[in-house]
Amino acid sequence: MTTTIIRGKYVLCKVEDNDKVKIISDGAVVQQDGKIIDVGNYDSLNARYVADEEIGSDRYIVLPGLVNAHQHGNGISHIQLGVLDDNLELWLIRRMGRRPVDTYLETMLCAMRLIESGVTTTMHCHSPRGPNHEQEVAHIIRGYGESGIRVAFALGIRNQNQLAYSDEQRFLDSLPPSVAARGRKYLASATFPEEEYFTLFDRLHNQYNKTSSRVKIFHGPLGPTWCSDDLLIRIKQSALNYRTGIHSHMLETMYQEMYSLKQYGKTYVEHLHEIGFLGPETSFAHCVWVSDADIEILAESGTTVCHNPSSNLRTRSGIAPINRMLEKGVNVALGTDNLSLNDNDDILQELRLCENLQHLPGLGKPSPSPGQLFRMVTTNGAKATMFLDDIGTIEKGKKADLVLINLENITQPYLDPEMDIEDAFLAKGSSSDVDTVLIDGEIVLRDGKHTKINKAEVISQLQESLTEAQKSGDVERRLFSRELCPYVYQFYQKWHPPERVPLYQYNRI
Amino acid sequence: MTTTIIRGKYVLCKVEDNDKVKIISDGAVVQQDGKIIDVGNYDSLNARYVADEEIGSDRYIVLPGLVNAHQHGNGISHIQLGVLDDNLELWLIRRMGRRPVDTYLETMLCAMRLIESGVTTTMHCHSPRGPNHEQEVAHIIRGYGESGIRVAFALGIRNQNQLAYSDEQRFLDSLPPSVAARGRKYLASATFPEEEYFTLFDRLHNQYNKTSSRVKIFHGPLGPTWCSDDLLIRIKQSALNYRTGIHSHMLETMYQEMYSLKQYGKTYVEHLHEIGFLGPETSFAHCVWVSDADIEILAESGTTVCHNPSSNLRTRSGIAPINRMLEKGVNVALGTDNLSLNDNDDILQELRLCENLQHLPGLGKPSPSPGQLFRMVTTNGAKATMFLDDIGTIEKGKKADLVLINLENITQPYLDPEMDIEDAFLAKGSSSDVDTVLIDGEIVLRDGKHTKINKAEVISQLQESLTEAQKSGDVERRLFSRELCPYVYQFYQKWHPPERVPLYQYNRI
Repeated sequence: MTTTIIRGKYVLCKVEDNDKVKIISDGAVVQQDGKIIDVGNYDSLNARYVADEEIGSDRYIVLPGLVNAHQHGNGISHIQLGVLDDNLELWLIRRMGRRPVDTYLETMLCAMRLIESGVTTTMHCHSPRGPNHEQEVAHIIRGYGESGIRVAFALGIRNQNQLAYSDEQRFLDSLPPSVAARGRKYLASATFPEEEYFTLFDRLHNQYNKTSSRVKIFHGPLGPTWCSDDLLIRIKQSALNYRTGIHSHMLETMYQEMYSLKQYGKTYVEHLHEIGFLGPETSFAHCVWVSDADIEILAESGTTVCHNPSSNLRTRSGIAPINRMLEKGVNVALGTDNLSLNDNDDILQELRLCENLQHLPGLGKPSPSPGQLFRMVTTNGAKATMFLDDIGTIEKGKKADLVLINLENITQPYLDPEMDIEDAFLAKGSSSDVDTVLIDGEIVLRDGKHTKINKAEVISQLQESLTEAQKSGDVERRLFSRELCPYVYQFYQKWHPPERVPLYQYNRI
Repeated sequence: MTTTIIRGKYVLCKVEDNDKVKIISDGAVVQQDGKIIDVGNYDSLNARYVADEEIGSDRYIVLPGLVNAHQHGNGISHIQLGVLDDNLELWLIRRMGRRPVDTYLETMLCAMRLIESGVTTTMHCHSPRGPNHEQEVAHIIRGYGESGIRVAFALGIRNQNQLAYSDEQRFLDSLPPSVAARGRKYLASATFPEEEYFTLFDRLHNQYNKTSSRVKIFHGPLGPTWCSDDLLIRIKQSALNYRTGIHSHMLETMYQEMYSLKQYGKTYVEHLHEIGFLGPETSFAHCVWVSDADIEILAESGTTVCHNPSSNLRTRSGIAPINRMLEKGVNVALGTDNLSLNDNDDILQELRLCENLQHLPGLGKPSPSPGQLFRMVTTNGAKATMFLDDIGTIEKGKKADLVLINLENITQPYLDPEMDIEDAFLAKGSSSDVDTVLIDGEIVLRDGKHTKINKAEVISQLQESLTEAQKSGDVERRLFSRELCPYVYQFYQKWHPPERVPLYQYNRI
């Protein structure tokens, strides 16, 4: 049995039901074999327990491990792979042209970056590339595994609208024949056949969901825009059978909103509610263009929203109406989508951006409280990833997923004694303050350095792999993606989103 | 004569008239005695000049020194001094209660932080505290001086509406007598008498504006909300006489917009235009609640807008309509207002936030170009601070204000060879990448360490000074500020800003 005392000037235990953040000053956490067995005053715990090791000091805040509830495992950012920010619909086309990267190495690099930000649990939204889906998935799960991070892996699939929001044949027919030919070739290679998907899902479910405490297998239909009703219904059935989760995209852009109204005469949220797709095991990224009625449906059905404030700006999608979601009781989690403001997956800065974007002008306007913000990156993320009550707070019986934040940047040269530490932390904390991270009581980051993986080695292997000449298929795909962009642009230009007054309208509400 | 070669993988020289960013690959800059004497290919310059020192390598980008065009010299942030973010009108009251800090030390600390972000020139918007204004100003200018940074010091004054946007007597009369009495006492101590202001301005002007290449003295009326027309007109006259600048706040919040309409039946911009206050020597921070007509006036009069995206969110002011300003040809500069998103005055992140907040949903919507963004933190800031053609680009004859940015974070593990370096830099660069900074050819930061000031010593002196017990007057002022907050809240609650549809309206356009 290994016993550790983790000590901090402050231990940020949880958000109480009354929305207050519970903090123990001069506190400590005792973990034994991966579980928290005691929390309290450092001196009294130190007198009571004989520890194999003491971690931390009065120069740290101890937090529960954080949850990044939506990202794609991109170890090398899209910018670095040559994909410039743009409207989502064009960005998705540009993204087709990015150079493929070794999946195993890039997942490890991504996982390390998440851990450096204090993240101990993440939702991996899988964007299938193929052609060997099984091997690809194995590499991703192995990459996360080596880092030690917990992951809800949402196996991705899409079966429609892959180039534009339109019947694929009709869209291809609208293109010049040579472009259409390349489009058909691309689609043939990009497709993940439905039967293969469900077979792989079953196998992964059996392999992980019953035995692993760090890997959960979720369904990951990419969203109602890209998945037929039949596929979504079959996925829902499987998720219910297996008691596992579903993670998807939802109403990210105004074009998706328009397409939803065109397809169904109602919003995607209303439609998916009608076909029984929503529920506490379901989580949706983005949700920028939801209506008030949608928000009520999401709240009542217990569906989680995984909010991505930076990504929504970078892809010109807008600002999600988080104040309204909180008011209506939606479970809001937070994810960086590997498109965070500084392109570095800093979940603490993402939380701060989330807060600030919800600061509407005018006295007395709602704004997320510190308690609501901390919940987003802890317990609300735990619900989304279905690690549920195992993680998200510092309490007896929970997994010992803990983060030590160096206080120097927050308290030096001075911190007014009347300023609450949670407010100061929310205003100033960032990845660069994360010193030590434990998962299941195991130290995975110490003094900002990874203990389980040699990061320099991973970077060097990635660099090595990227010095090789690009494969001709990849070069061709990039050319096709460039060629296609103007046609996709023209396609959506004909859509004429409703003129809504005033100019700075970031969402539908 | 000292000659230095400054070398980079990329030298980002300037933004061309066609809006393209001019970059020299494998480039170098030659400076002699503080002036740039040559720019070009490294190998050919290296063959041509015998340098005393070579700085940089192919692991850097070389930029012109950046301009932070609006900040207040706060070395210790408001959060750290106990002032929580809030609506501007309440924040100003909360701010009255902050603990005073040694002006000289905090200015040095602030200047160092700006330099660490690549800033070589700044607009200091002076918020007079008194009672000894002359000494206070001397300390500030000395603090900047020791760091080496260029500063346009805008001497601050206000003579109305200091507690709320209302006749001061009437507002005081509306308060309970005990609160009103403390208010009168505060106002008596806070006032900077007009004659004293102009006497000090004349003295400072004579001391600096004719001789110093690093200090310019500007007028700094705090804004039309806080300054009477008579004061503004007298200031404008003085600025024209002395051929110097004016820096002020403008239409930061919707309450200022409402007050302007109440006071004048028109916007402040229209009113100030009528009294002849605008012009190329005038710059305004914020400008969130300007109208389309205001923007045209600002453009036509050559008035600069110093944009503060983070601050505008943190004080719940909104998002300034920068796209429209750029479209109309307004000179837009950028400042952190010591209220940047991460509370660290990172001008590169501020620029990125500026860009992203202007990403309106919908294909084909305008968005600032890389050229427009670089101009904001270089030549446009040079206009605002009136260092004009001395700084802002890397060209023969300019001051050798240069910044070396470490490329590692931007290009490692990989950067697609087809990604433009200016795009990658805008997406990823931040203060932590700034390695070396030169001002007038002098190295003020090398390997991220200050050469002119012992930073640890400054921090330690500040810490020392803040261990002293607070003065009773300061404790009293904080109590008064807390006591006053609910009355100020009630005061504005009666204002009923117009309900504008939809909910997420961040500005008037």
